[in-house]
Amino acid sequence: MQLVHTIDEVRAQVKAWKREGLSVGLVPTMGYLHDGHKSLIERAVKENDRVVVSDFVNPTQFGENEDLGSYPRDIKRDAALCDAAGVELLFNPSPEEMYYKDNCTFVDMNRLTDVLCGKTRPIHFSGVCSVVTKLFHIVTPDRAYFGQKDAQQLAVIRRMVRDLNFDIEIVGCPIVREADGLAMSSRNTYLNEEERKAALVLSQAVRLGEELIEAGEKNAAVIKEKMIAHIEAEPLAKIDYVEIVDAQSLEPVSEIRGEILAAMAVYIGKTRLIDNFIR
Amino acid sequence: MQLVHTIDEVRAQVKAWKREGLSVGLVPTMGYLHDGHKSLIERAVKENDRVVVSDFVNPTQFGENEDLGSYPRDIKRDAALCDAAGVELLFNPSPEEMYYKDNCTFVDMNRLTDVLCGKTRPIHFSGVCSVVTKLFHIVTPDRAYFGQKDAQQLAVIRRMVRDLNFDIEIVGCPIVREADGLAMSSRNTYLNEEERKAALVLSQAVRLGEELIEAGEKNAAVIKEKMIAHIEAEPLAKIDYVEIVDAQSLEPVSEIRGEILAAMAVYIGKTRLIDNFIR
Repeated sequence: MQLVHTIDEVRAQVKAWKREGLSVGLVPTMGYLHDGHKSLIERAVKENDRVVVSDFVNPTQFGENEDLGSYPRDIKRDAALCDAAGVELLFNPSPEEMYYKDNCTFVDMNRLTDVLCGKTRPIHFSGVCSVVTKLFHIVTPDRAYFGQKDAQQLAVIRRMVRDLNFDIEIVGCPIVREADGLAMSSRNTYLNEEERKAALVLSQAVRLGEELIEAGEKNAAVIKEKMIAHIEAEPLAKIDYVEIVDAQSLEPVSEIRGEILAAMAVYIGKTRLIDNFIR
Repeated sequence: MQLVHTIDEVRAQVKAWKREGLSVGLVPTMGYLHDGHKSLIERAVKENDRVVVSDFVNPTQFGENEDLGSYPRDIKRDAALCDAAGVELLFNPSPEEMYYKDNCTFVDMNRLTDVLCGKTRPIHFSGVCSVVTKLFHIVTPDRAYFGQKDAQQLAVIRRMVRDLNFDIEIVGCPIVREADGLAMSSRNTYLNEEERKAALVLSQAVRLGEELIEAGEKNAAVIKEKMIAHIEAEPLAKIDYVEIVDAQSLEPVSEIRGEILAAMAVYIGKTRLIDNFIR
């Protein structure tokens, strides 16, 4: 596996592959890879001749009071994981390689991004759309892989790809969980022992919501209230949002019909965690 | 030459060319082609194995009180001109082919677009950036050709290509003028006989500015004032703006140093015309 830091190196390698007629899969990540990322990489390796992983903590998707500085990084461990999983190219650029000082262009959308996580993180999805556009232009993949854990991100990327006519297949992959149910996240490393236990309210609320729907409950408000009550019973948890929305438009639904997304963001101590399910 | 109306037809043809290793040039236009467009097309034909012209009056770059409805269209004449000039593919989509009803993604920038034409046309460049991004993704050209007549558009597209890492060479081509100096524009058809004569103040002001600089004038305010005075002497002319700015950043300059853009927009009757020079 090659570990490269410049856009030119990526372009040169991908062009060589394309000349040979090989397909290319991209797994965009912010690094500090866990089994959730690994599941994306394994799927990409299965479905493409060559796989590129990008490993870049993108500053433009962090708000001023967010955790850009403390976000965990370990490129050596990431490289070992990618190498073992069959990745051909790991792209780990510096912020200076990705952004000119007078960078002023951005990709954004006027729906889908002002709800759920977008309410608390107003610039987040503009940063995500812009960096993913850049990565798509640099890597020119046939397929790109995103986790269902960031359900809104996945919906936003699918919409962006449709609206801007990217010729790229977006593959969404299921949430990977720890044995006790906690959704895998690089941010789980922020949790102390007590918080780690408290964090289980998210996956428990997910299971509760799924069970209610399976039992035939159609009233979104009822499901939401029960999920909220469960989370609020945990003293270390503070709800940012719990919402039930249409899985494509992300608009609130009152009745469970068609494909819905039940999504939540919850602070456990100072750490903001997300979880969700789609039915 | 093929005339096609769907994105799928363009993609299929371009992919076939790329498999043969052929280079592709794109000339994005709003149609009603004149000798200015023709000069772009001829350059593209010279520099690429295959040339695609897009012919699309893009609704998202027109403001509410602008001339979307009356913008001149003549696809038959355009097709004949393209065919004669050696174009292989003319892409003439409907607005519905280009935009989903719930389209919500856009490309924009927070510099370069709030000055010059962007002041009077606040949504214009977001519409331009978004549709050009879409065309770039649909056609995947090696090179794309834009006229220097829309100097701000050219600067904006160059910046967008740089910031979003499009792997496309942007080629700017000189302004083409009528025998008497008027810059070619599809909007010149709006002018009546009297206005057509009055419209010469734009190219005359351009020549005046060029001559002052050639004579050694370094004071931008002096040059600007003389250009403005010339235009204001014409009763049918109403200035939108006359500005002298840095050719890359589009920020105002007080002294003629480095590459400057002197640009103007002037209403002749109800018709808004633009002209400029770079030195």
